[in-house]
Order: sequence, then structure tokens, then C-alpha cells
Amino acid sequence: MTTAHVIGVGITKFGRFPGKPVEELASEALVRALEDANIGWGDVQQLYAAHVNQGVAAGQRVAKEVGPSGIPILNVENCSAAASTALREASLAVRAGEYDVVAVVGFEKMQHGVLLNVHPEDSPDVAMGTTVLPMRFSLMAMEHMAKYGTTAEQFANVVVKNRAHAVHNPNAQYPKPVTLEEVLGSRMITDPITLFQCSPTTDGAAAVIVCSDNYLAKHGSARAVRLLASGLVSDVDEQAHNHFSLEMVGRNVRGVYERAGLGPDDLDVIELHDCFSVAEVLAYEELGICAEGEGGRLVDDGSTRVGGRIPVNPSGGLLAKGHPLGATGLGQIGEIVTQLRGEAGARQVEGARIGLTSNMGMWSSCIHILSV
Amino acid sequence: MTTAHVIGVGITKFGRFPGKPVEELASEALVRALEDANIGWGDVQQLYAAHVNQGVAAGQRVAKEVGPSGIPILNVENCSAAASTALREASLAVRAGEYDVVAVVGFEKMQHGVLLNVHPEDSPDVAMGTTVLPMRFSLMAMEHMAKYGTTAEQFANVVVKNRAHAVHNPNAQYPKPVTLEEVLGSRMITDPITLFQCSPTTDGAAAVIVCSDNYLAKHGSARAVRLLASGLVSDVDEQAHNHFSLEMVGRNVRGVYERAGLGPDDLDVIELHDCFSVAEVLAYEELGICAEGEGGRLVDDGSTRVGGRIPVNPSGGLLAKGHPLGATGLGQIGEIVTQLRGEAGARQVEGARIGLTSNMGMWSSCIHILSV
Repeated sequence: MTTAHVIGVGITKFGRFPGKPVEELASEALVRALEDANIGWGDVQQLYAAHVNQGVAAGQRVAKEVGPSGIPILNVENCSAAASTALREASLAVRAGEYDVVAVVGFEKMQHGVLLNVHPEDSPDVAMGTTVLPMRFSLMAMEHMAKYGTTAEQFANVVVKNRAHAVHNPNAQYPKPVTLEEVLGSRMITDPITLFQCSPTTDGAAAVIVCSDNYLAKHGSARAVRLLASGLVSDVDEQAHNHFSLEMVGRNVRGVYERAGLGPDDLDVIELHDCFSVAEVLAYEELGICAEGEGGRLVDDGSTRVGGRIPVNPSGGLLAKGHPLGATGLGQIGEIVTQLRGEAGARQVEGARIGLTSNMGMWSSCIHILSV
Repeated sequence: MTTAHVIGVGITKFGRFPGKPVEELASEALVRALEDANIGWGDVQQLYAAHVNQGVAAGQRVAKEVGPSGIPILNVENCSAAASTALREASLAVRAGEYDVVAVVGFEKMQHGVLLNVHPEDSPDVAMGTTVLPMRFSLMAMEHMAKYGTTAEQFANVVVKNRAHAVHNPNAQYPKPVTLEEVLGSRMITDPITLFQCSPTTDGAAAVIVCSDNYLAKHGSARAVRLLASGLVSDVDEQAHNHFSLEMVGRNVRGVYERAGLGPDDLDVIELHDCFSVAEVLAYEELGICAEGEGGRLVDDGSTRVGGRIPVNPSGGLLAKGHPLGATGLGQIGEIVTQLRGEAGARQVEGARIGLTSNMGMWSSCIHILSV
């Protein structure tokens, strides 16, 4: 069975672009990924499009923007985990031997606010999930503080770290440092989560090109990155709905580690889903890069800064790079691929050879491990 | 490489169910498919959910309705071709060796009207596509009439045939016969297409269970149906947008025939996308069951009735069974599987061993060939 390889990545600037159609944003990312892979639009055999709220046949509209094409196109929705889920589908198509070169593009314009396409009358769970999400993360934070002595400062320091990373990422929405005081002093959303500890409303797009062993053998690519293992799990039991938890991340990553034949100590760099500051701290523990309850201390001691033991979110993460829902998972892949190629400039994690992405949505966790 | 097999199908009654949440409808189809496959919810390893306008994380909401589960779930959107596209993804996951048993569920509630989730300011193509769709099919009809002498009566007779088939389908939205006069006399939508020649607004759900060779060898299933070949193509060039055409169906089916190692003469039964009466006539020609220009005559001579040379839409098709967008493709699969198993009762196509489904959306064609 063939392996899937990433041979091209493309990311747009993340930010607010009210005058730019989403098709244009997405096309820009896709064209950059094609250029990065040094292939043409005509070489792509299937396109996976990931988004949450961009309307019917969005992938077809994006493809039209890129140029005439008759290739198969489909759209994948999986809330904020849509893009990494689409990449997993693309890798399955390659592994099934159906294609040698597949493109995946994720995109979102959030000008209408978060999660427009909710039918509260049909879906109390979704309405709950979207409207009370900060509250749920605040409950998780409080539980963690009570149980392990984690402090409000430790959560806030996640933002300080990720903003410091984003300074070196030209595509980040907030490439500006903040102090601990500024984070703690920003508007309180739901205690202990302040405004700067919430990921922003973002427009943006990201794309990757995936290929087979066969293609790589024929065309070669010194800059190819191998997709070592992927995992998707969802959590739909009553308990999970009433109390959004990161347990599914832990369950997912254990399977992915097993399939990749490695563990958390083998990782050199991580991009994870810091939709709120607390989510990053909890994810440290679920991913196994520290023991249960040690997440707060891991922020304090600098382990997860670039230059530390296991750098997390060198791109700036969702908090500083931005969080365009349907693009986020491929934004993470773009960063890890850039890091593993040694092309990350001032935010480069020295000698990075194995990286992990952890992307979450309602109610799914999608994880990829990549290596050079 | 393993083949994918369908071992269970489940379809709800198609119709208007304003008081029934879409999660309940979809769960009903999924549970029926599980029962039909004689497996439990716990045996399913991944769930693909197909829909067009049912909001964020719809598949997760449906899974929750079925019962606690931690399996991977994702949502596939591909306009009216969503369900058959999702089945193709499921078959790729099985062929990649990732899973032995995968479920696919398609569903739609259209109480908000057709294609709610359109952002006309972002997507003139989609706005055009949805609002002027009958007009486009009417233009295709007129062109066919001028070029080949096809008559308004021949188009209308497609409805007479499909309604006659639906009388024997307990799940059909309109299980009542109509006369040619009634079809022609119904309200004119856009000449020559009258109201009865447009597929209705429908709520409904359909599900299938897909498994690997390995699973089949272990558990056996006398009622398994083999997924012989599948194809997805999209058409996004400027011309296609301005003039929705069925050319992509012909292009798609030629590839599918090649991969299946057979041709149109080998087919025993077809379910195709008769969103408008004219679409069925044009599809005859694209699928190659008659020569170019002969589609109208094929309706007249009874070839495509149950009992004829090559029965088309024994279920009643979209025109009489109904067209719940995200469920339609799996409704077609359900009918073909039922036919190939010889379980279609009064609408049974005698001795059917090879069947084809042709599902369309903006702007994709998805085709499957199944056999016993």
C-alpha cells in the first residue's frame, strides 16, 4: 500500500478581508500550493474543499476561479476540523490507489459572524455548542485550576507565547507581541478567559498537494514530507455534548501514535487547536507531552516556546495566526511542513523532523503526524 | 486491493414531515440499514454523512440520535450529488484498507425551500444555478426538440412512466398514477416544463452499509451487492456555468464503464437523476442506452418501463419518489440494491444482475455500477 506525501503547501494572509470573495482567497492558497509543489492545475486529479459556512458547491466555485477543469470535486464539512478531515480523505484516496496527485483546499470568510449556518430550532446541541463555547472552556479552566493549582496567569501566558511566535509569521492576523498584563487586562469574556484568550474572527485559506509513492518516485521531491499517520474520532455521547471535553483528543492521539509507531517524546514540533488559551494547556496533557495536571507549568517553564523542549504553535496558533474555521487544519499542516523542510525562518524549530497537528471541531478531533 | 460491497440499505418514507427533526429521519434510515445488514451500531467503524443544507456537524447530530459512539464522523456536501459522492468516499476508505465496515447516511429537510444556504453576494453562479435551473432545463428541452424532433408529450411521458413505477414503491412521495393530460395540463413553469415535470420539495433520508472483501469472507452475506465501479467528475468551466449541461454525465460514465469492464448493453436497471423530465431523456443518451437524439422515442416505445428493454427509475425517480437533496443518491443505491437482490416486489425488474445509478448536482456527476 502506498503512503501519502505532502509536496506543496500554500497559505494566504489570515485577517479580515471584507472586499475579497472567498473563492478568490481560496484560489490564491491553491495556486500557491501548486507553485510550491512545482506542478500545474492540470496535474491535479481530484480536489477536496473544506469549509463550514461558505454555501453550496463552494469547492466547485473555487476551482472555477483557479481555471477550467473537469476533475472530481467534493466538499467536506466537519466544523472547525473540516480541513484536516479533508486531508485525511485525500490521503485515503491516494492510499486506495485511486489517484497519484490530489489537492485539498480549506477556506472560510467569517464576515457573517461565527457559525452562521445554525438552525437552532432543529439543533439545540449546535446552538448550545456555538453560543456557550467560551463558557464551557471556562468551566474546564476552573476545574483545572481547582484540581491542579493551575493559575489564570498560566492560561494567559499561552497567548503571550503564541503572539511572540506570530511576530515571525508574515501570514498571521496578529503579528504583534502582547504582555501578560495586556492579556489579563483585556475584556473579561467568561472567567478566567479574557478577550485575548479567544481565537479571533478570521478570513483565510490554506491548501496542500498530496501525492503517492509512485508519483514521488517518478518526479522526485527533495521537499516532500511524509504523512506518517492520521486519525479522526468523533464524540457524540450525551456527556460530551453537555460538557465539551478534550478527552477525544487523547483517545485519538493514542491510536495515531500506535499507527505511526512512535510516542510524544518523538515529536519535535506541534501545531494544536488553541481556540481558547485553556484548550492549549489541556491539549498538552491529552497529547502526552506532559503529565496530567502539568500543563500550566509547561507554559511557565518555556518548554513549548520555539527553542524549548517541544515547541507548540510556532505559527502563532489560532490565537495569533487566526482561526478561519474551514482553513485552520490546513494552516496547521502548512506550518508543520514548512518547519520540517527547515524553511520557517526566524520561527524555525531547529532540527525538526517529526511534527504533529491536532485540529478540533464539534464534535471531532483530527490528528496528523508528518515526518521527513 | 479489496472491493467495496453494499450489505445493507435503509430508506425512510419520502414526503413532507414538518414536525420531524432531520436527525430523527436520518437516524431512522441508518437504523434500518443496520438491521438490513444484520449488524449493530457498534460494528460501524466510520460514518459519512451527506446533506446540503442541514447545518454544522449534522452527521454528529445524527449519530447521537442513533446512540453513543466514538467513531469518526464527517460530512460531505456536493449539492444534489452529495449522497453518492459520500458513498464513493466510503468505498475509497474501504479500498484503502482503513476500515472493514463503514456507514453512509444522506438526509435533507427542505422545509425552508430549495437551497437555503446560498450567499448570492458571494456566489452569483450559485444564485443563478438555483434560481434559473428550470429555465436551463427548458432551454435544453427546446434545443432537443428543434434538433431531433422530440415532442413535449415525450418529456411529459417520463412523468407518466415514473409515477406508474412509484405506485409500487411504499416510500415514494407520490405513489399515484398520472395521465399524460394531467402532466401537460399542470401549471406551466417554463415551456415545455410543467409543474409535474419538476421534482418536488421533499424530506427524507437513506443509508447504506459498505464492507470489505475481508468482512464478507468472515461474516458472509447472501444479500451482498458488489460496488463494481464508481466515478465522480465535476464541470466548472465558464461554459458549463452559463449553460448547465449533461455532458459531464457522458464523460463520467465512459470512465466508469471502462473501469467496470462493461458497457450500456450490460445494464439491467438504472436509477437516474430526473430532477426535471427532460433530464431523464438527455441522460438516456449520455449513458449510451440509446443513440443521440433518440431519447424521446425511448420513452414512447416503453423501453425504459419496468418490463421494457432497460427499465429506468423503477423507484419512481426524483419526480415521483421525491428529491430530498442530500439523500437522493443513496435513495438510488437503495433501489438498485433492492432490485439486484430480487426484493423489489411489484416493481421488480426480472433477472436484474447489473445496475447503475447516475446522480447529479451543481456541478458534479457521480455514477456507481453495482452487480450481484
